[in-house]
Amino acid sequence: MSSIKKVVLAYSGGLDTSVIVKWLQETYNCEVVTFTADIGQGEEVEPARAKAQALGVKEIYIDDLREEYVRDFVFPMFRANAIYEGEYLLGTSIARPLISKRLIEIANETGADAISHGATGKGNDQVRFELGAYALKPGVKVIAPWREWDLNSRDKLMAYCEEHNIPVDFSKGKKKSPYSMDANLLHISYEGGVLEDPWTEAEEDMWRWSVSPEAAPDQPTYIDLTYEKGDIVAIDGERLSPATVLERLNKVAGDNGIGRLDIVENRYVGMKSRGCYETPGGTVMMKAHRAIESITLDREVAHLKDELMPKYAELIYNGYWWSPERQMLQTAIDQTQEHVNGDVRLKLYKGGVHVVGRRSAESLFDEKVATFEDDAGAYDQKDAEGFIKLNALRMRIAANKGRKLR
Amino acid sequence: MSSIKKVVLAYSGGLDTSVIVKWLQETYNCEVVTFTADIGQGEEVEPARAKAQALGVKEIYIDDLREEYVRDFVFPMFRANAIYEGEYLLGTSIARPLISKRLIEIANETGADAISHGATGKGNDQVRFELGAYALKPGVKVIAPWREWDLNSRDKLMAYCEEHNIPVDFSKGKKKSPYSMDANLLHISYEGGVLEDPWTEAEEDMWRWSVSPEAAPDQPTYIDLTYEKGDIVAIDGERLSPATVLERLNKVAGDNGIGRLDIVENRYVGMKSRGCYETPGGTVMMKAHRAIESITLDREVAHLKDELMPKYAELIYNGYWWSPERQMLQTAIDQTQEHVNGDVRLKLYKGGVHVVGRRSAESLFDEKVATFEDDAGAYDQKDAEGFIKLNALRMRIAANKGRKLR
Amino acid sequence: MSSIKKVVLAYSGGLDTSVIVKWLQETYNCEVVTFTADIGQGEEVEPARAKAQALGVKEIYIDDLREEYVRDFVFPMFRANAIYEGEYLLGTSIARPLISKRLIEIANETGADAISHGATGKGNDQVRFELGAYALKPGVKVIAPWREWDLNSRDKLMAYCEEHNIPVDFSKGKKKSPYSMDANLLHISYEGGVLEDPWTEAEEDMWRWSVSPEAAPDQPTYIDLTYEKGDIVAIDGERLSPATVLERLNKVAGDNGIGRLDIVENRYVGMKSRGCYETPGGTVMMKAHRAIESITLDREVAHLKDELMPKYAELIYNGYWWSPERQMLQTAIDQTQEHVNGDVRLKLYKGGVHVVGRRSAESLFDEKVATFEDDAGAYDQKDAEGFIKLNALRMRIAANKGRKLR
Amino acid sequence: MSSIKKVVLAYSGGLDTSVIVKWLQETYNCEVVTFTADIGQGEEVEPARAKAQALGVKEIYIDDLREEYVRDFVFPMFRANAIYEGEYLLGTSIARPLISKRLIEIANETGADAISHGATGKGNDQVRFELGAYALKPGVKVIAPWREWDLNSRDKLMAYCEEHNIPVDFSKGKKKSPYSMDANLLHISYEGGVLEDPWTEAEEDMWRWSVSPEAAPDQPTYIDLTYEKGDIVAIDGERLSPATVLERLNKVAGDNGIGRLDIVENRYVGMKSRGCYETPGGTVMMKAHRAIESITLDREVAHLKDELMPKYAELIYNGYWWSPERQMLQTAIDQTQEHVNGDVRLKLYKGGVHVVGRRSAESLFDEKVATFEDDAGAYDQKDAEGFIKLNALRMRIAANKGRKLR
Repeated sequence: MSSIKKVVLAYSGGLDTSVIVKWLQETYNCEVVTFTADIGQGEEVEPARAKAQALGVKEIYIDDLREEYVRDFVFPMFRANAIYEGEYLLGTSIARPLISKRLIEIANETGADAISHGATGKGNDQVRFELGAYALKPGVKVIAPWREWDLNSRDKLMAYCEEHNIPVDFSKGKKKSPYSMDANLLHISYEGGVLEDPWTEAEEDMWRWSVSPEAAPDQPTYIDLTYEKGDIVAIDGERLSPATVLERLNKVAGDNGIGRLDIVENRYVGMKSRGCYETPGGTVMMKAHRAIESITLDREVAHLKDELMPKYAELIYNGYWWSPERQMLQTAIDQTQEHVNGDVRLKLYKGGVHVVGRRSAESLFDEKVATFEDDAGAYDQKDAEGFIKLNALRMRIAANKGRKLR
Repeated sequence: MSSIKKVVLAYSGGLDTSVIVKWLQETYNCEVVTFTADIGQGEEVEPARAKAQALGVKEIYIDDLREEYVRDFVFPMFRANAIYEGEYLLGTSIARPLISKRLIEIANETGADAISHGATGKGNDQVRFELGAYALKPGVKVIAPWREWDLNSRDKLMAYCEEHNIPVDFSKGKKKSPYSMDANLLHISYEGGVLEDPWTEAEEDMWRWSVSPEAAPDQPTYIDLTYEKGDIVAIDGERLSPATVLERLNKVAGDNGIGRLDIVENRYVGMKSRGCYETPGGTVMMKAHRAIESITLDREVAHLKDELMPKYAELIYNGYWWSPERQMLQTAIDQTQEHVNGDVRLKLYKGGVHVVGRRSAESLFDEKVATFEDDAGAYDQKDAEGFIKLNALRMRIAANKGRKLR
Repeated sequence: MSSIKKVVLAYSGGLDTSVIVKWLQETYNCEVVTFTADIGQGEEVEPARAKAQALGVKEIYIDDLREEYVRDFVFPMFRANAIYEGEYLLGTSIARPLISKRLIEIANETGADAISHGATGKGNDQVRFELGAYALKPGVKVIAPWREWDLNSRDKLMAYCEEHNIPVDFSKGKKKSPYSMDANLLHISYEGGVLEDPWTEAEEDMWRWSVSPEAAPDQPTYIDLTYEKGDIVAIDGERLSPATVLERLNKVAGDNGIGRLDIVENRYVGMKSRGCYETPGGTVMMKAHRAIESITLDREVAHLKDELMPKYAELIYNGYWWSPERQMLQTAIDQTQEHVNGDVRLKLYKGGVHVVGRRSAESLFDEKVATFEDDAGAYDQKDAEGFIKLNALRMRIAANKGRKLR
Repeated sequence: MSSIKKVVLAYSGGLDTSVIVKWLQETYNCEVVTFTADIGQGEEVEPARAKAQALGVKEIYIDDLREEYVRDFVFPMFRANAIYEGEYLLGTSIARPLISKRLIEIANETGADAISHGATGKGNDQVRFELGAYALKPGVKVIAPWREWDLNSRDKLMAYCEEHNIPVDFSKGKKKSPYSMDANLLHISYEGGVLEDPWTEAEEDMWRWSVSPEAAPDQPTYIDLTYEKGDIVAIDGERLSPATVLERLNKVAGDNGIGRLDIVENRYVGMKSRGCYETPGGTVMMKAHRAIESITLDREVAHLKDELMPKYAELIYNGYWWSPERQMLQTAIDQTQEHVNGDVRLKLYKGGVHVVGRRSAESLFDEKVATFEDDAGAYDQKDAEGFIKLNALRMRIAANKGRKLR
């Protein structure tokens, strides 16, 4: 343990990571560098500075990463229509690789030989943080206090704080939530508490980012989203930066009761876990991206994307953003987005996102061919006979040879 | 043309297929057998008898296929969580193979050498009908009048009716819908008319099976669904037959504004097409099936199902229900459903389906392992370190050898 | 038919395509442009000029496309390790898209509105030619005489020649092969004749490009291949152009009895067909490319490539080289080849290709980690316990819950 | 450590596992049950009895598992055409789940609470043994001495033997091979020694189960294999048990120099490793199974199998035989084999396996359709036009809209 000289810690400023600062200093007799990022979690990050200073930290990094987060992580993921296990929009998963990247950059800048984080040994986040760290700096040491120490109860933590003069008061005032929560610009998550019984409905007052569908306005809200190369660049005609796009969508969608999700998911470490999520903007983006793709993507390209998507989503969920296979898939996905340009019109209403229109200068929808009216020869219906007959040929031969279908 | 002696026609009793009866008799100088099925389209089928008799048809088949339809086609498909192109629940596609099967059975019973249908040469349905027919009776002849005749305008059809004394009046009374519609117990579809411009919103009065979310009740409806081997067997504790399950779900979901969909899809014959669908019960079933699977399926089995699903959905969309590859996939899917037993609780509200609970005697959710509280040794957090390190090894080696990730 | 003014024909100079020239002129009353390419089929192309002139053709294209063929079609395909149905190296399939491309280029240069080819209506080649043509020039007309005319027997063809003064003598001298053959730099194929019974062994004197293993030298031949970005750039240290690489490999491999294949394959048009192939150089390239990838590709990238390969091979077999989905896959595949650099040493002996060594400056093989000897801490064996335990967790939970494996 | 009372050890009778017996007794103060299986490794298993007795073992299991091995593990795997990373026939991987199964059965019979094995912490075998054990008996303890002890050099092992009176002499006589080897009825493997440099060719005297191609007979050997439901049931007309089939094929193929392989593979634990393998019978079986499938499987079923195969092979390689996802895939694969009946004729010559004929009463090869001669209307060439045109439609629309292919 004495071999570690300096460690960069992903520091939220909260009680747990404050304890970790002290524990690292004491246990490893090493210098701690703190890194606090604004990735849209909705809390001030600047207060973390004074807290870190009070803990004796000399090198303190506080970054606003919101634009980088949406531009380089959220948007590329939505190009893939990534959904994990049919439901989950990967709101926690996609924030982790950015944290890993900054931890390693700061380790390189400060000459640190280790990184540390406050994720437990049961969850996915430890995997995501550490796979990223190892991939980007293979010799780095990783310290995961929750896997090492014995402070695994609230009482022990509190005793540790008292013993080490860690000001517990900064968690006062807020009533301690019964849930384990995590937030970033894409979503907020809830686990634990009554949710540990998958048959128990989540309580209404748990949700924070959206009103209930019942409480949403009685009139629908219409919005137009403009896409360029698969990314949203404007809302209702107003050109916006990536993070601003997502902030605006979170607001309008949350106001309309959109984006709540309650699932049981399969963690990479092997257990099932119940989680509730609010992803207001992301829920809108998913629907809208499929809609703009529906008129601009070739059929077979779209189907290939659909076949690759579960694998891509699994990679992100499991923590393999920083891997050559994710990059291989991303290259393919990004190549398909060249023509994914145009507008989608949506109706938001009491928890529902309804696509009502889509248009594109590069649309592959051909009214002349598709029409029920006279198509002036754009399509020769007689071609269908040969098409069907040859597609049926192998089955006809099989049936002629006596094969039975059940 | 003279070689055909008897043809079985999928006969709706409507104007178009009545014209086809006459046209077949006249053009092929053959006997016509009509087959009319109740698959839950919501119209009486018995009136088709008198109409067929009036057209000189001697062999008339009228079947209630609703139970067979849901039990042997809809339910197996929902075991796969099949969605086409991320949105479409395959409500038209899945009804076709049953029609093909009955057409061929009737052809065999009546000694007919041909079948006929009223689908156009531009759509998917012709493919679905005919692939099924060829697979089940390889020597059958198929007559697709819309690909052959020149009655391709309303005026010509009307002239033909007048000329042949086909009673047009039976289509009177009903205002002719501006949409091309099709319905069965799983859904109703709309195409054509103003929908041919994908930027134009569907009109509210188009929808028939659901109220608008705005018009839905202000109080949510809760329902419990009971699953056995992946199929719903009871609603709110009441044991129901497959067709009854779907009828009930259509009612309660439609009343809550659930199941409307507006998409542009890729047809198998090569064009993009805009369609609107109402699938109230199916929308509920999709959500609920994923929820019961979430606690009863193994993770890797669930992921494999997700990777295979797009292919399975494409097969059904394209008309390959009666194919060995669909059966291969079905065998695998059905094998996974053995333990998919238990209950799902849903909240239906103004267009939204929200899973609020799931439970099963065969649940793989292990509270002892998953808990944030003390797990009494059910899970050793130290295992995670080795897990992560070996999963990272290949990437560490690559980084050590100088490979860069972008 | 009168609407066609000028047609570009893929012209081999042989009897069949000479008949087509005349038949096109006569049937369509149009001008014929001939296009003859050297793609390594092993026959002189220049004699086609005089033959075309004799048939009254004014615009005659004769191109040496060997380098383009190997560089832009064969090599990209081998980057994917493409094999159709586990055996076939796609030697015919991959030559077709180049022909389509040139046909369309020439149509554009000469103002032709149609293309034509000599492929039959039963095979894959018609599909490959025409899909490419339509994809590159959507309004082009395609004339496939074998699907249109009634000259479908040898006798009728001969009668037509006599009637139209087509000099049959140019096929004299050569004894007419009993097989339908096709060749290009990648392979030569044989179909028909006694091969139509899949139980009958091909006769030894059918094979043309390789000696039999029995007749091959009694001493093995060793060669070293050098790869850059997944393509072979040198043999035994000698830097060579793409076509020269393949020519040399064909020679050395053919001399060692390598590359014969006898299979029954599934055609895109729906039937099974028996074909024999000689692919001497390609057989070597396939083995060698996998070998260089084995030390330079990441495991998961390699596995993803293996999962995508059957689809990629199917696309090429079915004629979708010129499609957006093939290009999507190619983009992904090419991205993986950046580090596929290094050398492979092979032993060729009596029909066998044996990899005996591989090395790369970018090798991911890490002797320090892999060694059975003391690894000086490069790998901590204790990590394996946690790795296994967490990978087993879901199965342990299932077994604890009473699930049985069979 | 004191908690373990009885452990079942996979015992070869060799030096390493003899040391393990003693080490377990001493370290865990527990009873050791030995289990020695004949899975066709080519060494007597009965001598293990006396050795175990000499070490104080009271419960000794010696089983002949050859038939079970081939029938329930090797044959099912070959139905899938499983190849790992394009080359490896999984000869080691497939033997492990049977050992796991027997270890657990014996643990249950003898009331043991733990199992143990002699696999190292760097390899795949530990994973395969342990995943199987945990899946079949979730509460079992696993002792992997090579991950725990400090006897990790030859000298330390020898010192331990001397100290504990373990008779080293039973490894005398045999010159210690420089390779790490493992054998069962499907193959023998070689790792380590000079093979640790992937550029160094394996020495001729390393290979044990096959003659070199050079030393093989100058005359080819022909054999006929008879398949029932995808498994070989007879050779040259003689009906044989599964293990006998594989023994005979090993003999005839090894005599003809068939089945040598030299690769660098990716281990599940994250490193690349160079291995040489001799799989004489398996190499023949792979070729032959594809050949019988080529005439009896539907095209799309065959293609689906090819797409699923890499995943299936990876599962077996990684140790997931005893997993629900492998069983899901096996169910699908087995379902496809119902009609895989018939004969394959092979020519074996100097390292090469050449399919020369295949026939089946259930063949889907239709000579009437496939023929180059007059097919009497079995296939209408005109159908191809519509088939191609509709398959091209989406690409024509795209090109008309200005999309470019590269």
